[in-house]
Amino acid sequence: MTTMDNPTRNGVDTAGLFATLGAVKANNDIAKFQFRATNRWVSGTHNRSTIHGFYGAGQEMHHSEPFTFDADHPAVLVGEDHGPTPVEFLLHALAACLTSGLANIAAARGVNLTEVESTVEGDINLLGIFGLSDDVRNGYEQIRISFKLSGDDPEKLRRVVEQSKKRSAVYDILTNGVPVSIEVDAG
Amino acid sequence: MTTMDNPTRNGVDTAGLFATLGAVKANNDIAKFQFRATNRWVSGTHNRSTIHGFYGAGQEMHHSEPFTFDADHPAVLVGEDHGPTPVEFLLHALAACLTSGLANIAAARGVNLTEVESTVEGDINLLGIFGLSDDVRNGYEQIRISFKLSGDDPEKLRRVVEQSKKRSAVYDILTNGVPVSIEVDAG
Repeated sequence: MTTMDNPTRNGVDTAGLFATLGAVKANNDIAKFQFRATNRWVSGTHNRSTIHGFYGAGQEMHHSEPFTFDADHPAVLVGEDHGPTPVEFLLHALAACLTSGLANIAAARGVNLTEVESTVEGDINLLGIFGLSDDVRNGYEQIRISFKLSGDDPEKLRRVVEQSKKRSAVYDILTNGVPVSIEVDAG
Repeated sequence: MTTMDNPTRNGVDTAGLFATLGAVKANNDIAKFQFRATNRWVSGTHNRSTIHGFYGAGQEMHHSEPFTFDADHPAVLVGEDHGPTPVEFLLHALAACLTSGLANIAAARGVNLTEVESTVEGDINLLGIFGLSDDVRNGYEQIRISFKLSGDDPEKLRRVVEQSKKRSAVYDILTNGVPVSIEVDAG
């Protein structure tokens, strides 16, 4: 592929993308990142996270601004609906990760995109979190994501989605799980 | 516990919470929920999700308003930083789920909370998603969450966090994984 001919494709700085890959190949240590969020309880099921600083490329960094997000339960789940439920943010994260990835991969392969939309659904039986059945898990039983893409050759577009799935951080985490440790300072 | 004496605790409508539990016990079918998000690619790694409708309690429902969230990569990852990365939303979801849960559980147990804060960190080695190492996974290698709580007896507060972990949808999903299916309509 010739990135010089078309340094930006799909809004992706492909030259920058290949330069970043080259830098990481030359020094694997800069690939170690740590992302962070802080959360503060507001009232009831309403709480708010701030996402700002992170570690990466060998240094402390931060986003251009602190991003804040409210989470809550809707009225039917005895909340005040100040934001989506926590599990809905997982669906957003999955769609966002696969979409960011496929835009990058398409650019790297010289594939043009004109439109990408997706719908994500997660089935959950609340008997689990309510503690009303030992046979029902707490989390989603199944997640389905459906993409609609336009642009170049449909077969190329399908392969771009397939590759995005193979390299998606969120898809990996949601399908394979990750160790989570919890520490409590109560006083 | 006597919810009549104190129908609202920690901002939680405890009477409503017990009424909801009673309704679900009487009719398990109303515990089946489906949450949804739609996502639209903007440009490059920037995309936006909308969270509005969901199914629950036997009917189509929706949040009080459509909630929209941007995701992007920061400049160091060749994005334009219009929002957090997708993996950062997972950290928010985890903190939010455990915090919502513990507020409910504390209210149900008659435990008063005055302050709850948490910090979440996720370690990720980008050699995985860059396809530069077969030994490195795409997703987080480890997530740590640290809670600081004030309110009633510290031992009761610790037990409330422990119970929230046992009944958290997001904790279950992140630690145990969930089947994800992907469908593509390209044209």
